[in-house]
Amino acid sequence: MTPYEVISAKRDRQKLSETQIRFIVESYLAGETTEYQMSALLMAIYLNGMDFEEITALTQTYIDSGAVVDLSAIPGVKVDKHSTGGVGDKVSIILAPLVAALDVPVPMISGRGLGHSGGTLDKLESIPGFRTDLSIDRFKELLQDHRLGLIGQTADIVPADKRIYALRDVTATVSCIPLISASIMSKKIAEGIDALVLDVKFGSGAFMKDLADATALAKTLIRIGHGVGKTVVALLTGMEQPLGNKIGNWLEIEESIDCLHGRGPSDLMQVTYDLAGQMLLLAGRAGRASEAQQLMERAINDGSAYQKLLDIAAAQGADISFLENPEKMPVAAERGVIVADSDGFVGEMDTYQVGMASVVMGAGRIRTDDEIDPLAGMIFHRKVGDAVKAGEPLVELHAASAERIAKGRAMLDGVISVVDAAPQKSPLVLKRLTIEDC
Amino acid sequence: MTPYEVISAKRDRQKLSETQIRFIVESYLAGETTEYQMSALLMAIYLNGMDFEEITALTQTYIDSGAVVDLSAIPGVKVDKHSTGGVGDKVSIILAPLVAALDVPVPMISGRGLGHSGGTLDKLESIPGFRTDLSIDRFKELLQDHRLGLIGQTADIVPADKRIYALRDVTATVSCIPLISASIMSKKIAEGIDALVLDVKFGSGAFMKDLADATALAKTLIRIGHGVGKTVVALLTGMEQPLGNKIGNWLEIEESIDCLHGRGPSDLMQVTYDLAGQMLLLAGRAGRASEAQQLMERAINDGSAYQKLLDIAAAQGADISFLENPEKMPVAAERGVIVADSDGFVGEMDTYQVGMASVVMGAGRIRTDDEIDPLAGMIFHRKVGDAVKAGEPLVELHAASAERIAKGRAMLDGVISVVDAAPQKSPLVLKRLTIEDC
Repeated sequence: MTPYEVISAKRDRQKLSETQIRFIVESYLAGETTEYQMSALLMAIYLNGMDFEEITALTQTYIDSGAVVDLSAIPGVKVDKHSTGGVGDKVSIILAPLVAALDVPVPMISGRGLGHSGGTLDKLESIPGFRTDLSIDRFKELLQDHRLGLIGQTADIVPADKRIYALRDVTATVSCIPLISASIMSKKIAEGIDALVLDVKFGSGAFMKDLADATALAKTLIRIGHGVGKTVVALLTGMEQPLGNKIGNWLEIEESIDCLHGRGPSDLMQVTYDLAGQMLLLAGRAGRASEAQQLMERAINDGSAYQKLLDIAAAQGADISFLENPEKMPVAAERGVIVADSDGFVGEMDTYQVGMASVVMGAGRIRTDDEIDPLAGMIFHRKVGDAVKAGEPLVELHAASAERIAKGRAMLDGVISVVDAAPQKSPLVLKRLTIEDC
Repeated sequence: MTPYEVISAKRDRQKLSETQIRFIVESYLAGETTEYQMSALLMAIYLNGMDFEEITALTQTYIDSGAVVDLSAIPGVKVDKHSTGGVGDKVSIILAPLVAALDVPVPMISGRGLGHSGGTLDKLESIPGFRTDLSIDRFKELLQDHRLGLIGQTADIVPADKRIYALRDVTATVSCIPLISASIMSKKIAEGIDALVLDVKFGSGAFMKDLADATALAKTLIRIGHGVGKTVVALLTGMEQPLGNKIGNWLEIEESIDCLHGRGPSDLMQVTYDLAGQMLLLAGRAGRASEAQQLMERAINDGSAYQKLLDIAAAQGADISFLENPEKMPVAAERGVIVADSDGFVGEMDTYQVGMASVVMGAGRIRTDDEIDPLAGMIFHRKVGDAVKAGEPLVELHAASAERIAKGRAMLDGVISVVDAAPQKSPLVLKRLTIEDC
């Protein structure tokens, strides 16, 4: 078998065999298939697709390229949540301690931000001292002691995805359902979970721009999980505007603390409760959604969810005084405000552009090796549909320099607007999918 | 502008602007666009195509990447012939001296064999001493003195195509009309011709498997030439079986000498006469096809075409005693014969497989850096449709070792067969296309 044969087969819309998929990935990792051959194949996959059997074979090949975490010694049903990524999506930071506080083990291996979308690891690391580069052994200890661990992907888990993702990132082959599916599910299966709740986002601020694509992705992910004996439930949630009011690494930690104190924005709390509720149901901690809701509200109200965040942060090296007194954290050196230019209502916005504006102000990355400014970001004073008067602030910009504020402002030009009539609100959590729906 | 933007535009079926095409090619040559980005773009072009304006821009960018030969000092209409490649296609070696003997200058810059298809340079270099790596200045002298030069592409002509072709070759993006068109026409335009005759082959032994693709390619090539003021005529010729009776570098020189002595196989002579006749018409050397035919037959019969081959070979360093006495050349160390297993007729054959069999025996290359055995190849004793009796030889195999003979034999298994009824013969030269047809 040669790389050429595999590339030309997919180029000609043929189905790749498990042997071909295993050969090309393994020979790529071994340095025998070149980067330019792999990128030609990735583009052929992007344009000609893969069927479910091919995606399953790719996922399994990814998993087999590295270690699989064994969490069997941790008692309970281990449940994780994965989001396909959006703008202002800090749900993991609220949900993980909330579910763990209810005694369900949450083994969470997260990623970094790239492009318009932020990453949980970057947000956690904006807390002074918080370390996410922990070993799998330490991860297991944290789960044993706290029912929770919040770490980054280690080098020995799914190295194939790491190598291939880096190539996809620079060859315009990221937004492809087969490749996204194998990437997500291989990592989640390798982290040793029993069940998984997916937040598959759609809309202008998501990778999947429309509901049909998001549904197709969700179904593929659910079926892959089912194929290896993992129960997967997906919620399809809207990303037509940022989630919550704050974007930026430390700013999102601040907002997460507010949520754990019971004073979070309603859109963010709704998505968090819905996703965390599914986790409690999958873990058998609650029998019905209403019961799960009661448990979660109690964990917020009695402070146990907040305390779980403090505990895990302390265990992972953080100086928790910054969580207890967020005002201890310095504010970004430069700030700017975008104000309403007329009376009216906040109009619909291209949320991708909002995400990119926060990136150019320093809150995210264009390239994987870009540095992040933990203090940069945006604070929304009004959200889509809110009434506003001329001169009132719409959004506050935070960055390290006036130049960066100007860049962010330029990118937001025409994106955040005031309109005469309030736009219709689309539902935030649109539907729930299980294997029964696939 | 970034490589990513250009890749994603073509991925999304957008038309690339001239600026984008120029940027990506120039930045690739400068080492700024990486090989893996270029190969992703090439696959996107392969699958999503390019329109005529894009192809024209790509061709012009290729030409501008290097030098353009100025042949204005050579009197006469300079005409070249280009074939899209087939198995046993040694037409150039007969046609070039034939046309030059009739006083039409033929500036021929040829390529090497790759895959199932042979290359004129490799064939010429099987003549001891024959050098094709000459400078453009020497090429001009040869044209001045002999009306003929037979050289290889120099480093300064269309370097962009050289770099990109090497990448296409290993990423399964060769057989793509836009990329083939820019590659062929940039080189032909850069070599300083006034007019061009194309042999666009179709069938199992050609890059274009069917007539529709071959016609589309021919029309594109004619239109590109027309766009820069060059008259281009194309003949569509069949490649459903090898052309002539011999395949292999020296074996094809032998057969070409036979043709110039007036004793060549009829299929090979028909294609040679038809293509050379078009060259004489384009050069104004003949006014009608019948007149061209008379001139050519006379140049064969009076020995002037053969003498032209001797003259140019001597001028390019060859020991012409091998042309005068081909039996001086050693024969391949090992030979094998495939015989008819029953009475009947030679059936249709997968000519690609025949080409690949000669490659594995040493006559060609899988990779551009493979070495070639000038003596390896095949001699057909019967062609498609010929009557044969059980036990009679169909084809003779020549190679340097018994192992290579066995490899060739294995590759031909089931390819050359004897059938009960003679297959219908398809016409060899199917149609002629000019700008009027495009």
